[in-house]
Amino acid sequence: MSPTASKPPASVAQRAKRIQLLLMDVDGTLSRGVCLLSQPNGAALEMKVFHPHDGAGLALACLAGIRTGMITGRESAALTVRAREMHVEFVYQKQALKLPPYEEILGRAGVDDRAVAYVGDDLPDLPVMQRVGLAVAVNDAAPEVKRVAHYITRARGGEGAVREAVELILKAQGKWRELVGRARA
Amino acid sequence: MSPTASKPPASVAQRAKRIQLLLMDVDGTLSRGVCLLSQPNGAALEMKVFHPHDGAGLALACLAGIRTGMITGRESAALTVRAREMHVEFVYQKQALKLPPYEEILGRAGVDDRAVAYVGDDLPDLPVMQRVGLAVAVNDAAPEVKRVAHYITRARGGEGAVREAVELILKAQGKWRELVGRARA
Amino acid sequence: MSPTASKPPASVAQRAKRIQLLLMDVDGTLSRGVCLLSQPNGAALEMKVFHPHDGAGLALACLAGIRTGMITGRESAALTVRAREMHVEFVYQKQALKLPPYEEILGRAGVDDRAVAYVGDDLPDLPVMQRVGLAVAVNDAAPEVKRVAHYITRARGGEGAVREAVELILKAQGKWRELVGRARA
Amino acid sequence: MSPTASKPPASVAQRAKRIQLLLMDVDGTLSRGVCLLSQPNGAALEMKVFHPHDGAGLALACLAGIRTGMITGRESAALTVRAREMHVEFVYQKQALKLPPYEEILGRAGVDDRAVAYVGDDLPDLPVMQRVGLAVAVNDAAPEVKRVAHYITRARGGEGAVREAVELILKAQGKWRELVGRARA
Repeated sequence: MSPTASKPPASVAQRAKRIQLLLMDVDGTLSRGVCLLSQPNGAALEMKVFHPHDGAGLALACLAGIRTGMITGRESAALTVRAREMHVEFVYQKQALKLPPYEEILGRAGVDDRAVAYVGDDLPDLPVMQRVGLAVAVNDAAPEVKRVAHYITRARGGEGAVREAVELILKAQGKWRELVGRARA
Repeated sequence: MSPTASKPPASVAQRAKRIQLLLMDVDGTLSRGVCLLSQPNGAALEMKVFHPHDGAGLALACLAGIRTGMITGRESAALTVRAREMHVEFVYQKQALKLPPYEEILGRAGVDDRAVAYVGDDLPDLPVMQRVGLAVAVNDAAPEVKRVAHYITRARGGEGAVREAVELILKAQGKWRELVGRARA
Repeated sequence: MSPTASKPPASVAQRAKRIQLLLMDVDGTLSRGVCLLSQPNGAALEMKVFHPHDGAGLALACLAGIRTGMITGRESAALTVRAREMHVEFVYQKQALKLPPYEEILGRAGVDDRAVAYVGDDLPDLPVMQRVGLAVAVNDAAPEVKRVAHYITRARGGEGAVREAVELILKAQGKWRELVGRARA
Repeated sequence: MSPTASKPPASVAQRAKRIQLLLMDVDGTLSRGVCLLSQPNGAALEMKVFHPHDGAGLALACLAGIRTGMITGRESAALTVRAREMHVEFVYQKQALKLPPYEEILGRAGVDDRAVAYVGDDLPDLPVMQRVGLAVAVNDAAPEVKRVAHYITRARGGEGAVREAVELILKAQGKWRELVGRARA
């Protein structure tokens, strides 16, 4: 986790200071591959792989009072379980379009665009990323996504990119140092 | 996804312009490893891992009117499920040889060799790759496969190589820009 | 496994000479990702991925009379099974904080801080790493963890980092050479 | 698969010419990680991940009349299934020591040490590697294993190293070129 070794530009830190809600895509952002296990009846069970640093980062965000949420086109019990473990408040699965759930979350959370960060990796993330106060692209995001991002993580999706976004926000808000000692496994 | 940063040579773009049907191998091309989960009865269930960008790419190809298909030596429910999710029209599993199903697909699709692109990684893909209008090898393909390819992707098999092929085709056909805003999760 | 090609500094070797007990974190240290397989009833089963070299290293540590243990925030049958395979003596799962189980292990093992090595990767490992005689950080550990470590492995967590710690200790104690011929599969 | 781009030294080719039997370790050599899936009853099922190029290589070896075999310390249905798929003749699982099964295989196959190649990655492989005519170490093998190897693959274990060994042997024997067109999926 050397991503945060270099400081983000001041404008990004300004954006990060205002964030109260951190939203993200799942496949390609918080999780790397789409893994399907064949079942004897012809169906398939979905496995999801998460990076431990991302999980720890989301737990720290929660501890710091940053609310979190996910908007994804797929649906799996694995994600539901992991989101619960990481105290994620807003979980929208099976969403072909991301703006409608995004706006519903804004309403439920009572915040406006500028207070929201979003981490994404591919074209369906674009409409939300063009709205939020802090748009973060993972390192292996599609070029179109990188182009609209305010910040590009050093880590690839599913390999610590969300943790980087959490650190970016908590450091900009001066909360990181105090949290380090309070992390739980 | 920086693979498409540099432009392919004009001859490749010419070939890509004519493509109406995108075919591909599965293991080593669309999926990385062969994963087998031991069962208590001595059998094994197959898991397949797909890259989210490849799935999104195939969905975009469908949206753009490019038909898609897969020819693979293995057989798994996981692939059947994933192919359905990605609106893949032609799915031929358990094929020891690839030319017979290739020719059957040509007949069903009503197109000729020049209108077909094929993405592959290993020796069994050679006979089809020597026929199609646009032969694409993944970055870690066998040397023999790279030698007959018109285009070699920057991504390794199972890590976005198929997405790259989709972008190559849709950009050559001038359809990419318009599709970017229509992508769904 | 070229990590041990270069020698660690003398002070690290001095610390390693005294080690009788090797403790470690699991996720991000001995295992790479957190893998959850969706179940039809909405639950998820956890899969853990281990590197063969780490397993062999733990078996060698046992053969050399070094006792071993794990302290982790998660809980899974997979880890229990693997720990048993590798003759791990102390297994503490579902521990939100690491110091209480650490102190319990010290008592059970009858050793003091200086005789303990700990391999970790993230913030919850810090309190234990600041106590032990030899603190080892995996190559992709959080910067805060690397800062307190006496030794940083060349391997990333889950990719041979624990094996490196075992070799470091056994070589410092002059036990490695004799063990090489006694390794079992 | 660029590993075979550069030619091995003449002495290695001489050794490869005589090979009639290709043996190998499994974990760390033909397969990358040790993957265990937790079961509700506290047991764990083992998943094994194989590289498609290795499987295709073993099938080509069989086609060329090279006999194959595996000696491993673990045991799983996944390996049994995969070995059958790849027409592997000798499968010895649950072997703590590798020399006894090695000698049994020599007897069954009716060949002597010089006609055998062995691909390995870690210390338990040493006794066999010091006997065979062609000892191959995977790129991320333990230093002790690399030291006794006649050839070190460019690929890491589980990522095409066995394919490289197959190509090395078949090219030295002048059989490769003719086989390329006969590969089946």
